[in-house]
Amino acid sequence: MQFTLEHTDPTTDARAGVLTTDHGQIQTPIFMPVGTLGTVKGVHQRELKEQVKAQIILGNTYHLYLRPGMEVMEAAGGLHKFMGWDGPILTDSGGYQVFSLAHRRKITEEGATFASHIDGSKHLFSPESSLGIQRTIGADIVMAFDECPPYPSTRQYAEKSMHLTHRWLERCVSFMRGSQPRYSHSQALFPIVQGGSYDDLRVKSCEFIASQDQPGNAIGGLSVGEPIPDMYRITKLCCDILPKEKPRYLMGVGTPANLLECISRGIDMFDCVLPSRNARHGMLYTRDGIINIRNAKWKNDHSPIDDHPAAAPTSQLHSKAYLCHLLRCGELLAGQLATLHNLTFYLSIVREARQHILDGSFTAWKENLVPLLERKL
Amino acid sequence: MQFTLEHTDPTTDARAGVLTTDHGQIQTPIFMPVGTLGTVKGVHQRELKEQVKAQIILGNTYHLYLRPGMEVMEAAGGLHKFMGWDGPILTDSGGYQVFSLAHRRKITEEGATFASHIDGSKHLFSPESSLGIQRTIGADIVMAFDECPPYPSTRQYAEKSMHLTHRWLERCVSFMRGSQPRYSHSQALFPIVQGGSYDDLRVKSCEFIASQDQPGNAIGGLSVGEPIPDMYRITKLCCDILPKEKPRYLMGVGTPANLLECISRGIDMFDCVLPSRNARHGMLYTRDGIINIRNAKWKNDHSPIDDHPAAAPTSQLHSKAYLCHLLRCGELLAGQLATLHNLTFYLSIVREARQHILDGSFTAWKENLVPLLERKL
Ligand SMILES: [Zn+2]
Ligand SMILES: [Zn+2]
Repeated sequence: MQFTLEHTDPTTDARAGVLTTDHGQIQTPIFMPVGTLGTVKGVHQRELKEQVKAQIILGNTYHLYLRPGMEVMEAAGGLHKFMGWDGPILTDSGGYQVFSLAHRRKITEEGATFASHIDGSKHLFSPESSLGIQRTIGADIVMAFDECPPYPSTRQYAEKSMHLTHRWLERCVSFMRGSQPRYSHSQALFPIVQGGSYDDLRVKSCEFIASQDQPGNAIGGLSVGEPIPDMYRITKLCCDILPKEKPRYLMGVGTPANLLECISRGIDMFDCVLPSRNARHGMLYTRDGIINIRNAKWKNDHSPIDDHPAAAPTSQLHSKAYLCHLLRCGELLAGQLATLHNLTFYLSIVREARQHILDGSFTAWKENLVPLLERKL
Repeated sequence: MQFTLEHTDPTTDARAGVLTTDHGQIQTPIFMPVGTLGTVKGVHQRELKEQVKAQIILGNTYHLYLRPGMEVMEAAGGLHKFMGWDGPILTDSGGYQVFSLAHRRKITEEGATFASHIDGSKHLFSPESSLGIQRTIGADIVMAFDECPPYPSTRQYAEKSMHLTHRWLERCVSFMRGSQPRYSHSQALFPIVQGGSYDDLRVKSCEFIASQDQPGNAIGGLSVGEPIPDMYRITKLCCDILPKEKPRYLMGVGTPANLLECISRGIDMFDCVLPSRNARHGMLYTRDGIINIRNAKWKNDHSPIDDHPAAAPTSQLHSKAYLCHLLRCGELLAGQLATLHNLTFYLSIVREARQHILDGSFTAWKENLVPLLERKL
């Protein structure tokens, strides 16, 4: 995997780059749609490529390990073939879901034991088993197995957890060195910075993570409930330490405004369930603000969902009244249209950010757009 | 509306024709996907046109009258514009749903009063109001308001009900004569034959319906639980009386084999919820038989869902194992892929039937295919 930095904004730390994987190039900054169970909910793979213009998607190790399971995944020849997506894929480590979804979880030095939220069956995730699973899934980018402490956490807990994550990272690096990529394409490891809301811990974690010299680096443990200014402060703090020549991935962030603010602080990659999950509940992101399409005020509004030329073709074709009707009737097409809308919007925003970074107009563009994005329409 | 009969099979009564509406031509025999609430569940309008190759779709008057309601429908400029479908649309009369879905229904000479299954609000459907609603929806083909007696019905009930349907039909014809089409395209009335399972009543009803000289004719009250041989016998009986030069529509039928058998008896048009409803439960129709994709036997089968060149592109792209996984996980994409599969299959079957009628090989083709279609795989 190779990362080329094309341009850094002169007045902010925003960067435009190109990340090259064996499944194609990714132009950064980029947003990665979440495809939990081998599907971005409600979106055909062809739409993901042609309409959303997704360049990389995310798969969830915890979910894919439980269903369909690694026997099926291996027989399929990996997730790319299983789901019919030939672009790059990133998998998380499964740690986050063990702590948020699984039952009877217990952390030891070895790893995390848990009971499946589906059938109660018992499992262990360790640095080695998580990466073994991610190798079998066949992700282009695999994430280090970490513990993401809840917010708020005491300093004592955050520090202890951070060092555990660091020790686990050393085992992750060893495992990657000692094992082969699957399905004849390379697999790059991204370590994850932790340290809670404590600046000095974050600094220590960034220095440790940077010292591991992996192909890219991630910031975890943000967007977990902390105030937004804290998120921005820690993001900047981390970006100032993490090496410039490697991609920086901010995990689980966020709203369109969050993306732009974090791009300006030096982030290159994002993933978040917000655009897809909120879509299914009728919350649409647009350049003019947020539309709750379930609201009765849209019932008889026959203007397009979004007539911006970069909007999803279906958002230009269909009216607000139609989508409001579909959503209120519980129709499948409502989730499909709204998800296409939000993901296409997210991808258009990062694409546009990239253009403005390249032509030197990023700051003015961002400052003008951010207040509009958060309005309620 | 114009119907041109191109060819009739020499050994059966199968016909190939072209039905011309103001929204385009329909090559018959044809299957019409059901778009209850202004959406064929889980299918984008573009997919309906380009992948399913649907030539006409059906809308449900009862459902659209309740949601979004006629104020929104009228402001949208009719259903074509509301849902973004510019091909032909047929609407049912609402009668069937009043009798199967609504509460506190009561039939009088005037029409049927009922309480909405959604909010309990009281309404009256009469021949005049049903057709007024269908005019506002803007369907290219509107159906006469009829009573569809349940199966089994006594002869006395079936006869009484049939005569009520006939009297209602005369009011439908008057209403159509005395009212204007909406949105500058023509709207054709199809009367409906009733008479239960009683051959002599069916003969009477066909003669009455034929005497009204409308642009097309429909057979109702079949596929309501009667034995399949009864359905075939009555279909043939009706086709022998209904005028050859007008399209014949068999309402609510059926399986792929039912379609082929009824095409061979002289039917030109079909609609049914089977392919879309069964798809959402994982039942897939193929040229080799029926697949229950939820079954564990498909979990690790990585062959395409259907590799026939006429199958949906997504069925050729994705594996049985993938669809099995999606369905078992309750993923939205499962319903989308399965519905695309079944509807594309239905349309490919009627398209192929048409080709075989035109080249004289219909009977041999049908006799060979029907036993395969009903196998369980
Ligand atoms: Zn440490
Ligand atoms: Zn009569």
